[in-house]
Amino acid sequence: MNFQIDKYISKKRAVVEKRLEKFFRTGNKRQSFLKDSIRYSLLAKGKRLRPVLCLASCETFNGNLSQALPVACAIEMIHTYSLIHDDLPSMDDDNLRRGVPTNHKVYGESTAILAGDALLTDSFNLIVKEGIKKNISTDIICELIVLLSTAAGSDGMVEGQVLDLESDTNKNVTVADLKKLHLLKTGALISASAVAGAIVAGAKNDEIKNLKKFSDSIGLAFQIKDDLIDDNEAGKTGKSGGSDRKNNKSTYLTVLGKKKSLSLIEDLTKKSNYYLDRIDRNTTILKNLADYLGKRKR
Amino acid sequence: MNFQIDKYISKKRAVVEKRLEKFFRTGNKRQSFLKDSIRYSLLAKGKRLRPVLCLASCETFNGNLSQALPVACAIEMIHTYSLIHDDLPSMDDDNLRRGVPTNHKVYGESTAILAGDALLTDSFNLIVKEGIKKNISTDIICELIVLLSTAAGSDGMVEGQVLDLESDTNKNVTVADLKKLHLLKTGALISASAVAGAIVAGAKNDEIKNLKKFSDSIGLAFQIKDDLIDDNEAGKTGKSGGSDRKNNKSTYLTVLGKKKSLSLIEDLTKKSNYYLDRIDRNTTILKNLADYLGKRKR
Repeated sequence: MNFQIDKYISKKRAVVEKRLEKFFRTGNKRQSFLKDSIRYSLLAKGKRLRPVLCLASCETFNGNLSQALPVACAIEMIHTYSLIHDDLPSMDDDNLRRGVPTNHKVYGESTAILAGDALLTDSFNLIVKEGIKKNISTDIICELIVLLSTAAGSDGMVEGQVLDLESDTNKNVTVADLKKLHLLKTGALISASAVAGAIVAGAKNDEIKNLKKFSDSIGLAFQIKDDLIDDNEAGKTGKSGGSDRKNNKSTYLTVLGKKKSLSLIEDLTKKSNYYLDRIDRNTTILKNLADYLGKRKR
Repeated sequence: MNFQIDKYISKKRAVVEKRLEKFFRTGNKRQSFLKDSIRYSLLAKGKRLRPVLCLASCETFNGNLSQALPVACAIEMIHTYSLIHDDLPSMDDDNLRRGVPTNHKVYGESTAILAGDALLTDSFNLIVKEGIKKNISTDIICELIVLLSTAAGSDGMVEGQVLDLESDTNKNVTVADLKKLHLLKTGALISASAVAGAIVAGAKNDEIKNLKKFSDSIGLAFQIKDDLIDDNEAGKTGKSGGSDRKNNKSTYLTVLGKKKSLSLIEDLTKKSNYYLDRIDRNTTILKNLADYLGKRKR
C-alpha cells in the first residue's frame, strides 16, 4: 500500500491546529489571563490523534470534512482539559506536557483548574454553535453531545481517572483492571472521536457498531504503546516520562512485561483490522492509522 | 398580595431534590467512589435558587414544568460543580459548604476536582437525553446548551471566578469591578436559569429580553445580600462565613458599607420589578421571588 499515513496525519493536524488557533485568536482586544492559559495548553504541539481520527472517520464514510472540523476541535478541547486536570499536583503531579511546563506550573493551580473547566464547557458551546453554522442538523448535534459527554463523564473518562488514581495505591493491579481503566480513561474518548466523525458523515448503525469495536481496539493499543514509549524514552516524549506520578504506578509494562505488551498491541491491531474489514467502505486511511499507532516511536 | 413565596420555593425545591435524587440513585449496584462524592455535594441541602427560578420562569410563560425539570436539575449540577471547585484549597480553601464539610475535605482534592468535572459533563448529557424524552425539540435543546455553556464558560462563570481570585490580591477593587465580577461569577448562571425556563416555555424574544434584565438585577441583589449574610451570620449559613478565603477579600460590604449595600439591593429589586412590568404576563411568582431574595435572612 502506498498510502502515506504520516503525511495524512501531518496535514490533518495542521488543519485542526489552524482552526483551534482561529477559535482562540487573541485579536486586538486585551487577552484575559484565563484565555492565555487556555491557549497555552490547547495550542502546544500535541499528537492530535483524536481530532485526526474524527476527520479520518468522517472521510471514510464520505462525510463533509468542514462539518466534522469543529467537532474534531471540540474533542481536542475536551482532551486538553483532561490533560490539564490530570497533571495537577493532587493528581499525577506532572511538570512537563507536550514538551513544555504543565499549565499549573506556568499559570498556577487555580487558573489551571479553571482553564480545564472552561475548555470543557466551551467545547459543548462550540459544537452547537459551529455545528449549526455548518448546517449539521440539531438532531445530529444532540447525538454528538450525548456521545461525547457520555465518553467524557462520570461513566467514562472521569471514572477512568478515578480508577487510575486508585491504582496508585493498589499493588495488585491485574491486566483486566488495566484494561477497564484504560478503556474508560483514554479509550472512551478515542472511540467517541471515530464515532463522531461517522455520525457527522451519516454512517449506518451497523457501520458505527463495527467502527466502535475497531476504535476500542486501537484506543487500547495506543495506551499500551504509550506506556512503552513513556518508559523507554523518558524525557523525550515531552511528558515527565518514566517518573509519571513519581511512584510505582502500574502500567502494561510493569504488569505484563515488554514482550507480552508488544504482542498484545499486535493482537489488538489485528482485531481492529477484523472489524474494519466488516465495513463495506474504502477503509485505507483507518487501516493505515491503526497500523501507524501500533508502530509509532513517539 | 397573598401569594406565599416561601411555600412555593419549598415545594419546587422538593421537586428538584426528588428528581436529582432519582437521577443519581444508587440502586442495587455498587456505588463508585466518584458517584458517592457527586451525591454528597449535589444532594446536600442547598437553596436551589437557580432551579427554582428556572421552574418559576417556565410557569410564568405557561410552559410545561415536566419539560423544565431536567433543565432545572442540570443547572443545579452546573452550580454544584462550581461550588466544589471554588471551595478547593487552591481557590477559596473553604471547609464548610451547605452545612457540611466541603467535598475535598471528605473525598480528597483529586476526587473533588473530578466530581466537579463529572457534574459539568453529565449536566449536558442530562439536558439532551432527558430533554428528548420530554419531547423538547432538538432546536430548543441546542439553544439551551448554548445559553448555559455561554453562562458557565470562559466568558461567564469561569472568568468570574478568575476575577474573584484576582480581587484577593488587588486592594483597589471598585464597585464597578465587583459588579463585573459578580455579573459573571453568579449573575450569568442565575440569569441563564430564568431564561432557560422561558425558552422551554416558548416565550417570545422581547419577553426573554426583559426577563434577562430582570434576572441580571436579582442576580446582583442576591450576591450583595449573600455578602451581608456571610458577614453577619458567620458560621450560621453553613459556609465558613466571614473567613471566606481567610484574607481580606473585597465584598460589597467592605467596599460600599452596610447602609449603601442595603440601599443598592433595594434599587436592584425596584429595577427588576420595572423589567417584569414590561412583560405582559402574570408575573406574581417572579415578583415575589425577587422580593424574597432581597429580604431573606439566610
